[in-house]
Amino acid sequence: MSKKGILVVVSGFSGVGKGTLMKMLVEQHDNYALSVSATTRAPREGEENGREYYFHTVEEFQDMIRRQELLEYACYCGNYYGTPLCYVEEMLEQGKDVFLEIELQGAMKIREMYPEALLLFVMPPSAQELYRRLAGRGTESPEVIAARLRRAGEEAEGIENYDYVVINDQLEVCAEEMHRLIMSQHLLAERNLEFIDKVRKEVRQFLTK
Amino acid sequence: MSKKGILVVVSGFSGVGKGTLMKMLVEQHDNYALSVSATTRAPREGEENGREYYFHTVEEFQDMIRRQELLEYACYCGNYYGTPLCYVEEMLEQGKDVFLEIELQGAMKIREMYPEALLLFVMPPSAQELYRRLAGRGTESPEVIAARLRRAGEEAEGIENYDYVVINDQLEVCAEEMHRLIMSQHLLAERNLEFIDKVRKEVRQFLTK
Repeated sequence: MSKKGILVVVSGFSGVGKGTLMKMLVEQHDNYALSVSATTRAPREGEENGREYYFHTVEEFQDMIRRQELLEYACYCGNYYGTPLCYVEEMLEQGKDVFLEIELQGAMKIREMYPEALLLFVMPPSAQELYRRLAGRGTESPEVIAARLRRAGEEAEGIENYDYVVINDQLEVCAEEMHRLIMSQHLLAERNLEFIDKVRKEVRQFLTK
Repeated sequence: MSKKGILVVVSGFSGVGKGTLMKMLVEQHDNYALSVSATTRAPREGEENGREYYFHTVEEFQDMIRRQELLEYACYCGNYYGTPLCYVEEMLEQGKDVFLEIELQGAMKIREMYPEALLLFVMPPSAQELYRRLAGRGTESPEVIAARLRRAGEEAEGIENYDYVVINDQLEVCAEEMHRLIMSQHLLAERNLEFIDKVRKEVRQFLTK
């Protein structure tokens, strides 16, 4: 059916497992590509340029903004983060469904630029479970957990603005559900106008015979 | 997630296999119910009241119209056909996804009354294949085939008004695709406002602790 890929925006509370879900899907299916963000923050140990992020200087990043090479960008904690347009467009043209992990504000910007983008919000089965996962890592201080919960509270305000919610109770089940959902979106009538038109013209030809 | 069933309107060219698809899905999965239409046409051999149709007199049917007991109705070839509201509502409340096989005009009426209904159009892989299926039955006269093709030509005009198109190339594959698509629709954010609100409130409670 439709050949062009779908831009899939994935948001969700910190700790909900959205990164793991996308990694699983990219590994299991060959229709997905993961958008790699550009940032001005310093690489952490083990991070590779072009894999976790494209690392840039502030000057380079501001040049990208000026040349409108970013799909969206934002500044968090003194560092720029943004989505290079070129890679996303290239993957979509190749028919790849491109994952974009992004927060509410960025997601809304994407919706304006790409009205046909699919906006997913990954939910925990309950807030208790979210808290358990955040605290359960055992690596975070109470302050960090509290900050993430505050952030979750903010993010939670905008969930209705997303198209779909998926509940990450069991990773495999949720990944499969996400996959089915994204596959289904390829069947949208508006994504298949060419095919519809082709069949319609063919039917008309039979009628004039 | 969402408890209430989805009203699934299924349209498609005559001979495309939409009836078979729905029957398969109702047999394979317990979340589906098939809406049974009311009609004033005479029962054909083997047809049973309440299975293929609810058979009514013209007077009874007109009473149903007056009492607004029909979701939609239309008159074809001198006979009334309509969808009893009560059965559909009952099934939806029970959480069943209710199939409604209906033509373009009826589908548009349903969309007005149930904006949350899911409108599917079943397509043949090509018009050639549609013609082959219509003619291939071998039981129809050239006039009937021509009439159906004309009807297909009319129906084809409105395909963009549907939400999704599914292509019936192989029955099992198409049925599975339809099933996944319908399941995915239960994840629509707007169908899960209660759950979203519940998690949001819980997150807020953590924040005030």
